[in-house]
Amino acid sequence: MNFCIVGLGLIGGSVGLDLKGKPGIIRVGVDLHPENAQEALSLGLVDRIEEEGKALTEADVVLLTIPVNAIKALLPQILDVVKPDATVIDLGSTKSVIGREVAAHPRRHQYVAAHPVAGTENSGPRAAVRGLFNGKVNIICDRELSGEHHRALAENIFSMLGLKTIFMGADEHDKHVAYVSHLSHVSSFLLGQTVLDMEKDEKQIFNLAGSGFASTVRLAKSSPDMWTPIVEQNAEYLGQALAEYIMHLQRFQYHLMKRNTREIHAVLREANQIRRVLDRQEQEPKAEIVVK
Amino acid sequence: MNFCIVGLGLIGGSVGLDLKGKPGIIRVGVDLHPENAQEALSLGLVDRIEEEGKALTEADVVLLTIPVNAIKALLPQILDVVKPDATVIDLGSTKSVIGREVAAHPRRHQYVAAHPVAGTENSGPRAAVRGLFNGKVNIICDRELSGEHHRALAENIFSMLGLKTIFMGADEHDKHVAYVSHLSHVSSFLLGQTVLDMEKDEKQIFNLAGSGFASTVRLAKSSPDMWTPIVEQNAEYLGQALAEYIMHLQRFQYHLMKRNTREIHAVLREANQIRRVLDRQEQEPKAEIVVK
Repeated sequence: MNFCIVGLGLIGGSVGLDLKGKPGIIRVGVDLHPENAQEALSLGLVDRIEEEGKALTEADVVLLTIPVNAIKALLPQILDVVKPDATVIDLGSTKSVIGREVAAHPRRHQYVAAHPVAGTENSGPRAAVRGLFNGKVNIICDRELSGEHHRALAENIFSMLGLKTIFMGADEHDKHVAYVSHLSHVSSFLLGQTVLDMEKDEKQIFNLAGSGFASTVRLAKSSPDMWTPIVEQNAEYLGQALAEYIMHLQRFQYHLMKRNTREIHAVLREANQIRRVLDRQEQEPKAEIVVK
Repeated sequence: MNFCIVGLGLIGGSVGLDLKGKPGIIRVGVDLHPENAQEALSLGLVDRIEEEGKALTEADVVLLTIPVNAIKALLPQILDVVKPDATVIDLGSTKSVIGREVAAHPRRHQYVAAHPVAGTENSGPRAAVRGLFNGKVNIICDRELSGEHHRALAENIFSMLGLKTIFMGADEHDKHVAYVSHLSHVSSFLLGQTVLDMEKDEKQIFNLAGSGFASTVRLAKSSPDMWTPIVEQNAEYLGQALAEYIMHLQRFQYHLMKRNTREIHAVLREANQIRRVLDRQEQEPKAEIVVK
């Protein structure tokens, strides 16, 4: 079976590593940048590199692991050229905009919309790591729009990567990830910028920052090329999440100005409840529940 | 030498662990809560537990590792009762308010204001860990107000814990930590609250949250009892930092509403520069520079 991985960065490269040596799978890599492609090959992320047109028309499975604006632009064309029984899966972090782009495509049933919730703040072929997806959750969206065979194959592939698949509508997906993922990224990017703005002397940040700061701004190291289209495609729900976050910050600032100890403590204690969720996350494996 | 550790939680307990077995040091523990004191003793964080009055009057060194409102309230009384050659050191996260409280105290020279930039999101005696301070930065504030002997002794103790001491004015300290530490905590607490507000179903957060979310809200697990007085004592500088952070968030939200790709990308790319600081932090040991 020919697997064509389009985009050999953190996600595509990590998929490639995990599929290495699986019987019957040939990993064919495609990347816009020849130097990335070459690096991915030398790192063993794929078995061979091929020119995009040839790779796509010969593929049994196409995995799209490129920025979401590129997925949006390429997906319809890819569905046009693949074999009539090929399965096309995207692994992007937004789902509604991409889904709408192919809603009326005659080959919509060959496409499976997925989002494995896994990653690191690094990017490029060298960022690929084995086991990145193991034990994590994968979300397949609008399952009813994918053909039975294609969805089953996609689920098998995700299961090989160690992912637990749950199901959701694309709109519901985008709303949830706006809060639990995209807002985290934006808050981290802008926290980084606020501190850089204030501390002109980077040596000072370096000396004074504890591990808490490093943890909070870690996501600000993420790739702007990848994140700009994600926040744009999810602008509506992310905008709502940002509005709520800003409201909480401003309310806190008001209590702080008033030196209202009781209110400040109440806010921190309430937020503290996130400990329950986080501690569970460290201890339990993610549940294999089916959402909706 | 009698070391009296007042407050046997994360910080006091970790100091106790690191001082264990050091020749000539007897670790005497004091804690408001008898069950904490008992637990600290059974965990080996201190050599013995004593009643506060006795422990303070017999101590050669007093280490204050309690919330900063308690430090503010107790420090003057402690300076009143300790031996005339005893050294009193506080390890609180704010310095100006506490410093002002004893500015006119006849025994001000026996007091050393310090802030080791180390910690975790956990609290209580069980949170104590060996080596918590190793390789981290300690800030001694207003060094000129401490007697030479007391400052030298304090520096020796911090050096035993593996800390690199730098020096700053209390006001300068509070301003810097508002940005690189207190703002991180507040942003994390309120991010946690925003997500809890939105996701009434905690199972959903648990399933959808990636490691990025966990990293960004980790600090929201911190103790509200410890953090309420910190943010209050540093309300002025933290208020400024919050205002700047909110401004950045609102500007970003505006670009997002306008779908202004160029501006969004520019903001993310600029914030991305924090990578330089963070990567250095992972690689280099903190410099032993003297600030101001």
